[in-house]
Amino acid sequence: MQIIITGGAGFLGQRLAKALLKSSLAFDELVLVDIVLPDNPGNDNRISCLQADLSKEGAAQKLIQPETGFVFHLAAVVSSQAEKEFDLGWKVNLDTTRNLLEACRHQHPGIRFVFASGMAVYGGQLPPVINEATVVTPQSSYGTQKAIAELLINDYSRKNFVDGRVLRLPTICVRPGRPNLAASSFLSSIIREPINGEKAVCPVSPDLPVLLASPDTIIENILKGATLAGADFGGWRTVNMPAVGVTVQEMLDSLERIAGKETRARVEFRPDPAINAIVSSWPGAIDNSRALGLGFNVDGPFDGFITQFIAQNEAKPD
Amino acid sequence: MQIIITGGAGFLGQRLAKALLKSSLAFDELVLVDIVLPDNPGNDNRISCLQADLSKEGAAQKLIQPETGFVFHLAAVVSSQAEKEFDLGWKVNLDTTRNLLEACRHQHPGIRFVFASGMAVYGGQLPPVINEATVVTPQSSYGTQKAIAELLINDYSRKNFVDGRVLRLPTICVRPGRPNLAASSFLSSIIREPINGEKAVCPVSPDLPVLLASPDTIIENILKGATLAGADFGGWRTVNMPAVGVTVQEMLDSLERIAGKETRARVEFRPDPAINAIVSSWPGAIDNSRALGLGFNVDGPFDGFITQFIAQNEAKPD
Repeated sequence: MQIIITGGAGFLGQRLAKALLKSSLAFDELVLVDIVLPDNPGNDNRISCLQADLSKEGAAQKLIQPETGFVFHLAAVVSSQAEKEFDLGWKVNLDTTRNLLEACRHQHPGIRFVFASGMAVYGGQLPPVINEATVVTPQSSYGTQKAIAELLINDYSRKNFVDGRVLRLPTICVRPGRPNLAASSFLSSIIREPINGEKAVCPVSPDLPVLLASPDTIIENILKGATLAGADFGGWRTVNMPAVGVTVQEMLDSLERIAGKETRARVEFRPDPAINAIVSSWPGAIDNSRALGLGFNVDGPFDGFITQFIAQNEAKPD
Repeated sequence: MQIIITGGAGFLGQRLAKALLKSSLAFDELVLVDIVLPDNPGNDNRISCLQADLSKEGAAQKLIQPETGFVFHLAAVVSSQAEKEFDLGWKVNLDTTRNLLEACRHQHPGIRFVFASGMAVYGGQLPPVINEATVVTPQSSYGTQKAIAELLINDYSRKNFVDGRVLRLPTICVRPGRPNLAASSFLSSIIREPINGEKAVCPVSPDLPVLLASPDTIIENILKGATLAGADFGGWRTVNMPAVGVTVQEMLDSLERIAGKETRARVEFRPDPAINAIVSSWPGAIDNSRALGLGFNVDGPFDGFITQFIAQNEAKPD
C-alpha cells in the first residue's frame, strides 16, 4: 500500500511523514510530492520524494497508482498569496484538487482522500460560535477555493469515487521556521520570533479572537481523520478540527508568563488593513462537539502551545 | 449595451428574452446562446440567436464583448442528467460558469452576472425551515455544481471582477412543453399532462413537501435581481427566491378543484427511488424574508399556479 502526501515539502507534510513512519499504519511506500523537491523526512527505504506540478495536465494521473491507499492533500497556495495571485490560487487550490480526485476516481474506488481545509471557509456575518451547521460565506479567494474543494470531495465521496475526509484546520501555532504568505502567519511570528530573540510585528488589534491548534494536535488529528471508518462521518465528510479560542492579547500574556517581559516587549503593533480584513473575517469561537464526538483531540490552554514550541525548538527534531 | 442569455433555447431563456423586450431596460442587442440554436423569441432587430458550446476553450471569450452589460447565465445540465452523466455535469455546470466569469473579468469590470442557482444546493440534515443562513450540503452533483458556482460568483463579485447576483430558484411549476431530465420534472407533469388529457406518473409520496414558484414570478424575480443595485445585496450575493411550500397531495387537491375529478384521476403514483432520493433531499419549507425585503415577489396559493398555466396554455403565447 502506498501513501501520498502533497505539499510534502511544507512543515505539515514533513511532520505528517514523520508521524506516519512512527505510526501503526502498515504501508510499503510513502511518497512526498511538492512543487519543490521535498526533503527526505527520515532514513527509511519506503520514502520517495518527488518534484511535480500537479496542476499540470496528466501529472495527478501519473502520481496516483494501483497501490495508492491514502492521499493526504495538503498542497495549497496560502491565503494572502491567493488573494494577490488570483489565477495561481485557482490553479493550485481548485484545479490540482480536481485533478487528484479525477485521478483517484479513474484509478480505483476507495482511496482515502484526506484534505486539509481551513477555518477560512467561514467569513462575513457569523454567529457568535461556529459549528458545522454554520453557513459558509468566505471573504477571501483562499477560503472560497477551500470551500469549493470541500464540496467536490463530498460529491466524489457520495458517488463512491473516493473515500474523502475533509478536515477544517484552525490556524497552526506555533509554526517553526520563517513567516510564510498566509495572512495568519503573524500568529506564529509573535511567539516564535521573540523567543528566538527577534522582533515581531502584530498587524491586528490585541482584542482579535483567533482559533488555534498546536502542531502536535493537528498531526494527531490528521492521522485520526485518515483512520476513522468512512461511515463514522455520516452523510457529510467535513469536520471542523477542534480549536482553542484566544485573543492576541491572551497569547502575549502567555508569552510574558513563560518567556518574560523582555521577550514580550519584542512584539510591536503595526496595523495592516489587508491582513486585518482577511483574519478578522474568520471565526473567533467554535463548538468542537462534532469533532470531539468522533474522537479528535483538542489542545489545553495557550501556555501549552508555547511550551510545546520551546521544547521542539530546543530539540530541533524537524 | 448588450444583454446575453445563456440557455437561450430553454423555456426560461425564451420567456426571459420576451420579458426583456417588453421591459423598460434599454439595450441595443439581445443575444440568446445555447448548445442548440435558440428560437428567435420575437420580431425585433435587436435579437440575435447563436449556437455555441461555452464549455469549450475560448468560446466564452468570443461571446463576451466590450458592449456586454448583462449576462443571464441560465444554461445548465439538469439534476437527473448531471447525476447520470457526471463528467458532462461538471463540464457544463462548473467549467462553463468559470469560463464566462473569466471572460467577463478580462473584458471589463462591472458586467452584471445574473446566475440561476437552485434550491438543490440544500440537502442532507436540514432545519425545518431553510433560509440563507442554512448550511449548504447538497446531495446531488447538480446541487454541488450550483453551490460551487455560487461561491465562484461571490468571489468574483468581492474582487469587483463582475457584479454578480445569485438567485436560488425554487422548482418552476407549471412548465409548459414536455418533461425534461430534471428530477423535479414530474412536478409540472402531474398538472400539465392531466390538463392536456394525458396520463402522468408521480414518482414520490403524496406527502412530500416541495418549494415552487410560477413562471411569471420567476421571470419577474430574475429581472428584479438584475436591476437591483449591487450594494442592496450586502456582503453576500446569494438570495433564495421566494417560494410557496406545498405537498404533492395539496397540488393534486388543487388540480381536482380547478380541473375536476376526471383530470385528477390521470395521475398515477409509481415510486422511483432515484428521483425520490434527489427530490426528498431538497428543502420543503422556506423563510422568504431576505428576498421579500429586497423587493422580490412571491406567488399566492397553488390554485393560482394552475390558473396561470391554463390561461397561458390556451393563449399559447410561448
